[in-house]
Amino acid sequence: MADLVYGINPVREALQGRGRKPLELFVQKDSGRRLRELIGLAKDQSLNVTLLPRLELDRMVNHSHHQGALLKLTPFEYSDFRVLIDRWQQSGRSAFFLMLDGVTDPQNFGAILRSAEVAGCHGVIVAKDRSCPVTPVVEKTAAGALSYLPLCQVVNLSRTIDDLKQLNIWCYGLAGEDMAEDIFAAQLTGDIVLVVGSEGKGLRPNIRKHCDGLLAIPMKGQVASLNASVATGIALFEVVRQGQ
Amino acid sequence: MADLVYGINPVREALQGRGRKPLELFVQKDSGRRLRELIGLAKDQSLNVTLLPRLELDRMVNHSHHQGALLKLTPFEYSDFRVLIDRWQQSGRSAFFLMLDGVTDPQNFGAILRSAEVAGCHGVIVAKDRSCPVTPVVEKTAAGALSYLPLCQVVNLSRTIDDLKQLNIWCYGLAGEDMAEDIFAAQLTGDIVLVVGSEGKGLRPNIRKHCDGLLAIPMKGQVASLNASVATGIALFEVVRQGQ
Repeated sequence: MADLVYGINPVREALQGRGRKPLELFVQKDSGRRLRELIGLAKDQSLNVTLLPRLELDRMVNHSHHQGALLKLTPFEYSDFRVLIDRWQQSGRSAFFLMLDGVTDPQNFGAILRSAEVAGCHGVIVAKDRSCPVTPVVEKTAAGALSYLPLCQVVNLSRTIDDLKQLNIWCYGLAGEDMAEDIFAAQLTGDIVLVVGSEGKGLRPNIRKHCDGLLAIPMKGQVASLNASVATGIALFEVVRQGQ
Repeated sequence: MADLVYGINPVREALQGRGRKPLELFVQKDSGRRLRELIGLAKDQSLNVTLLPRLELDRMVNHSHHQGALLKLTPFEYSDFRVLIDRWQQSGRSAFFLMLDGVTDPQNFGAILRSAEVAGCHGVIVAKDRSCPVTPVVEKTAAGALSYLPLCQVVNLSRTIDDLKQLNIWCYGLAGEDMAEDIFAAQLTGDIVLVVGSEGKGLRPNIRKHCDGLLAIPMKGQVASLNASVATGIALFEVVRQGQ
């Protein structure tokens, strides 16, 4: 199931993107204008298009939220760390990476990938044994971001932080505690990797120790924290804002 | 079902909050430390606490993601528009309201309410016929925000915008088009209401016309938009940042 993308926008983005190679398009019979547009895009690439009854599509994804469009892709391929570094160095911009330490909710993971792409990140790094796999839910929530944004899986995040530091990239951890600097007062220009922890527990102590600085989003209310994808979006776009 | 909150954090927030009145706590038998803490909080308020087998709790919410804690509350009560205005005027701060024009996904709605509370909004305004109802999913995703943050339902958003303008509150619509001003370049101090549109369609033309200004989050990638709750979070915290 992990090689299927579904939903009109994700399928369109995947057909137009430069990421995973599309293999075959499945579309609901008696399709409307938006589905016919997808069929056109697929035929432009000489893809096989199969028309199926709605119930057949339901069966393929085990639910009915596919909007009549399913795209079969080559299996998800993580990018090599070197690819992310090359992408940065060829961009002519400051390094801007995102590292996730244990984000496991697929909808948060997908929304974070989407935000990272929209914010112009050069790539996202996750730990092999502490990350949500790239499921169709992740891909749908990412809204096509994985077609453009390299995602790299590493065995040891701390070691990767050290590798990034060797390249003079500053490592900022997004944390909640009092010791962390107000993110809006911090200077976030230059080469940066932003490290975000898991939904409930935040950053692991070992990762935290490896960071050059800890940042906190100021909390003005009674509720103690933000949703992980919202907090990450705010932090990513504070870097965007400062770089303008 | 709309009068049940579930999950350890939402239940704790609801027991400690000043919003909906707790009526009865249901806790899984053989409960651990975190559940016993909730029982303590409930007993402090002389609430009835009922211990039940896990399967009984599953049956009450029709799923198993309740973490062993269910709190029965008085039915959700929307706040009167006047309550929001009073809350602002008694706060000694600039007005900071959020208006939602057709956000219908319960998880987005909940995450947005959570962000609004954490950002220090005085209240959130939704349209009666164009809003997601306050379901347990909304309350869980809101992580207790509705215990603190007044939510007001109005019949006609345009008329409410006019009412807010009468109070010299500036109305900014979050929109994607080219005509909109870069949110990071806009001046967002003073009395403000931020208006956010629905997930797919954005603001309705009629609402857009009523706004004093339109704001856009700069997009640096290939994907055309952000998740609605992420975009709203970024906009809310840009107001926070400028007010610091």
